[in-house]
Amino acid sequence: MKEKTYSKIDLQNHSDQYKSNNSGSYKTKTASKNAGRRGKPEVQVIPLGGLEEIGKNMTVIRCDGQAVIVDCGMAFPDDDLLGVDAVIPDFSYLSEIEDEIQGLILTHGHEDHIGGIPFLLHEYSIPIYGTALTIGLVENKLREDGFVQSNLLHTVPAGSTIKLGKFSVEMIHMNHSIPDSSALAITTPGGVIIHTGDFKIDYTPVFEKTADLARLGEYGKKGVLALLCDSTNAERPGNSVSESHVGESFEALFSRADGKRVIIATFSSNVQRIQQIIDFAEKHGRRIAISGRSMIGTVELAQSLGYLHYKEKTLIAIEEISKYRPEDLVIITTGSQGEPMSALSRMAAGTHRQVSITENDFIIISATPIPGNEKTVTSVINSLLKLGSDVIYESMYEVHASGHACQNEIKLMLSLIKPKYYMPVHGEYKHLLKNAEIAYDLGYDKKHVLLAEIGDVVSFKERSASITGDVESGRVMVDGIGVGDVGTAVLRDRQHLASEGMVVIVCTIDENNGNLISGPDVISRGFIYMKESEDLIEDVKKTASTVLKRFAGKNKRRRNELKSALREEVGRLLYQRTKRNPMVLTVVMEI
Amino acid sequence: MKEKTYSKIDLQNHSDQYKSNNSGSYKTKTASKNAGRRGKPEVQVIPLGGLEEIGKNMTVIRCDGQAVIVDCGMAFPDDDLLGVDAVIPDFSYLSEIEDEIQGLILTHGHEDHIGGIPFLLHEYSIPIYGTALTIGLVENKLREDGFVQSNLLHTVPAGSTIKLGKFSVEMIHMNHSIPDSSALAITTPGGVIIHTGDFKIDYTPVFEKTADLARLGEYGKKGVLALLCDSTNAERPGNSVSESHVGESFEALFSRADGKRVIIATFSSNVQRIQQIIDFAEKHGRRIAISGRSMIGTVELAQSLGYLHYKEKTLIAIEEISKYRPEDLVIITTGSQGEPMSALSRMAAGTHRQVSITENDFIIISATPIPGNEKTVTSVINSLLKLGSDVIYESMYEVHASGHACQNEIKLMLSLIKPKYYMPVHGEYKHLLKNAEIAYDLGYDKKHVLLAEIGDVVSFKERSASITGDVESGRVMVDGIGVGDVGTAVLRDRQHLASEGMVVIVCTIDENNGNLISGPDVISRGFIYMKESEDLIEDVKKTASTVLKRFAGKNKRRRNELKSALREEVGRLLYQRTKRNPMVLTVVMEI
Repeated sequence: MKEKTYSKIDLQNHSDQYKSNNSGSYKTKTASKNAGRRGKPEVQVIPLGGLEEIGKNMTVIRCDGQAVIVDCGMAFPDDDLLGVDAVIPDFSYLSEIEDEIQGLILTHGHEDHIGGIPFLLHEYSIPIYGTALTIGLVENKLREDGFVQSNLLHTVPAGSTIKLGKFSVEMIHMNHSIPDSSALAITTPGGVIIHTGDFKIDYTPVFEKTADLARLGEYGKKGVLALLCDSTNAERPGNSVSESHVGESFEALFSRADGKRVIIATFSSNVQRIQQIIDFAEKHGRRIAISGRSMIGTVELAQSLGYLHYKEKTLIAIEEISKYRPEDLVIITTGSQGEPMSALSRMAAGTHRQVSITENDFIIISATPIPGNEKTVTSVINSLLKLGSDVIYESMYEVHASGHACQNEIKLMLSLIKPKYYMPVHGEYKHLLKNAEIAYDLGYDKKHVLLAEIGDVVSFKERSASITGDVESGRVMVDGIGVGDVGTAVLRDRQHLASEGMVVIVCTIDENNGNLISGPDVISRGFIYMKESEDLIEDVKKTASTVLKRFAGKNKRRRNELKSALREEVGRLLYQRTKRNPMVLTVVMEI
Repeated sequence: MKEKTYSKIDLQNHSDQYKSNNSGSYKTKTASKNAGRRGKPEVQVIPLGGLEEIGKNMTVIRCDGQAVIVDCGMAFPDDDLLGVDAVIPDFSYLSEIEDEIQGLILTHGHEDHIGGIPFLLHEYSIPIYGTALTIGLVENKLREDGFVQSNLLHTVPAGSTIKLGKFSVEMIHMNHSIPDSSALAITTPGGVIIHTGDFKIDYTPVFEKTADLARLGEYGKKGVLALLCDSTNAERPGNSVSESHVGESFEALFSRADGKRVIIATFSSNVQRIQQIIDFAEKHGRRIAISGRSMIGTVELAQSLGYLHYKEKTLIAIEEISKYRPEDLVIITTGSQGEPMSALSRMAAGTHRQVSITENDFIIISATPIPGNEKTVTSVINSLLKLGSDVIYESMYEVHASGHACQNEIKLMLSLIKPKYYMPVHGEYKHLLKNAEIAYDLGYDKKHVLLAEIGDVVSFKERSASITGDVESGRVMVDGIGVGDVGTAVLRDRQHLASEGMVVIVCTIDENNGNLISGPDVISRGFIYMKESEDLIEDVKKTASTVLKRFAGKNKRRRNELKSALREEVGRLLYQRTKRNPMVLTVVMEI
């Protein structure tokens, strides 16, 4: 699936490779502290997803005959993956190291980190570890899939350490746009690997603590072999905006919304955002109704686990909103990305069962469009505005804060943890490269910064690190209940059908002499208005008949060429007449 | 095509409507000056495109039995218009007023203002007026179409006035991201209508003058009935960035690029940008090669008309770049929007004939991605970075300046022209609304600001203005050489085929008794890997055979139900087994 561009280093000869790399002059406190301790096993980091892409994050960490996996995400399909529901990592490599795997550890509960788990568990029985909210979200997901294996799910509080074979993994609290996110400090026989997970540093977080910087610093003091660091916002200078800063925007907006119903769309997983909305609603004496399946599910889960707090009477069912005045209501809804079937899109289209949008609505879209969603979001905004409501969206007010570290926060991580090697993860190539440049700015040289692709085997040893091979990796497409049964050929056909439509020529001939018995019939879909193209269809039939006559009487072997001749000549006619190339299919029945 | 939501005002009774509107208390200098002159004919403004959308701008202005048209653009198809090459306005309404039409006047040469002209001229013979560059671009376009009607094309210098029947139209120089852009002051028997065209106010423009603000002010003094104003950037506070400010960025970038080949991608129509690049190249002693068909065409045209200036030896053919050192070259290329077949995309993919990207390239993307193009642009950037080149793109440096007015410039227009009525044009609904709000901020009330949809008849009279009816309007899709032969039904089929693929069931039966003679055969495309789904295909055949047996022996009338029964039962089987709904087609041949 994936094209490899890296093949410079021969797996057979990697020991030579290391020697030649040993001359590197880079020295850090960590490095000198560890100097002399030869013979430690190498640590291999093998990303199976999340590099040179946004989504389906998954990384294998191997050392001394054992392995752990960090995250198992999914990706949303690009526009060219027609009809594909989801994309997951290619798990093939795991079959090679199945006996080594000690567990899957989750950094947080976003889909691009947990969405692949149901597919993984259909193939492998692997114990899964994560903080309470993360495991709760996984459990919900498995329940939807009808396949809960509770014995495999283990809740681990932030700050504690899991012993997994020769590895021990400490969950270190981080800030992100979902509570209970963790960095992982993975102590292996070959050294400590720290994976930041998705993170930001929030000094004024909402209902949780600031990232445990001190603990990261302690690891830094002891010596960290490699740091794997989130690259999503590496292009942005400065620091990310604090989640509580969004609250200040809400404060002002709630005042402007006086006398109107407030509707706020955000990500269902952004529990901190939802908590802030609840707080403002309660402060202003408004009731809250939730709309959207995923939003209802997350609010229930987060409340039951103690991540979300509200007065008993605050929450009302969406069916009950008609009992309240607009100015006494806040509706929290899904659809901040303009998703076609989401609650907000249904409100915009006038098809939401309980919510009709009017001039009495004050709507806040509290999320930035993910690249690729700009058009659908804008279309929802236009529809809501046409219904007379006020709509507050990105270009008009600051109502979102990203969950990912900007350049200063990345510099802070590097300075605290002082890793010997640095490996940017979680981002497109431009993000990874920018993240690498941040390390260069801090004095790292190219030998100590590893830019990898998925499938690369990145081998970290005390005195050198390099890409020493590759494993099977790539993307597997999920369509309906089919996993992997849609691939390049099927997608190419879908592309062709999508842009040009198709024409089917059907006829019945005598199998003895090739004479035409019935047809040719022509059917077409997605090509042209058939009713207004009768002349063209007649000409297609004539062309097909001419070809059929030419082949009549020919021996059977020659008749194999009949179908391609039909396709070619009909295709040529259609192109001449329309400058389009529909897919031409031929069915010749012989009786 | 388009759904009308406005039908409150009855065409038959519009005189009553006017009377009831007469009580409006809004007064301007203009209004009082004109007061007392009753009996002037109303002016109708009928937008046929460009409102609640980006693209295909076209407006009819009618008064006293005559009409002129402003612009005739095309739009690029949205993602859901599968396979559609271009979208043009529905011209149907013009047939109703064909005898009234005095001419088509163009504000500038961008595709969304001239792209519909070849299609218009296939139906109507209308004289066309515009400044030299605009008419030159139209001529190039018609030549490609093989249909130049030079007798219809008239070049009008900025500042001059065209007499068209009872109308006179003055071309007033404006700034925009293409030279020779004009606002139009259209004097009709019913009053003056000013159409800004696409504009910004640039106090330090490149190789042209600042917009003719004084002339706009003169019209304002004399009295303007209505101002139609560009809304594209109405959401942005402040002023647009001057084109020459981009030059300052280039200056710094050329220094950073020292020793490397510079490649700059921008819009081919942005002649001012190209002039700046040429100036910097000459200053730094670099030769220039042009890549990309449209870029070559525009540079030739602009140079021949005197809009672009360079030393004879500066320009070299792209085939000759190998004769020069990288540091002595600048390549100007198309592809700033990541268009798949553009020169820059081919460079990124390694398939450009003359240009191979290396670490010795310094690439500047001098354009902001148009909404919807973000992903393709990013993908090109990632590929260029992977080839080792430096890439300067929006998030890293200010290398583009929009061609559209921000809020302060819109306020300036309103203050200079002091129109009695204001009509935001050129933008999605959210832009139009925001533009209207700017007028409200300046003291206009809702009766004097007209928010219209395409097809609306907006009637301006001295003492009232309102939407008094509607005409046929909408979008016409161009696919290949077909204009309008792809519509909702064809697109729906393409959508279905795109996301689910299709399955065709074919069989031959005895027309007398319905007994199966041959088949059923199954072919499928875009649905599933056929080779790995043999069991499923066998089951489809079995299901089809069962249905066929059930109908065998039935009379012919009943056999009509055979096809839908086949479709239904095969469809059900496929959904059960795959959770997908491919398009199922059935062909039953009777012999």
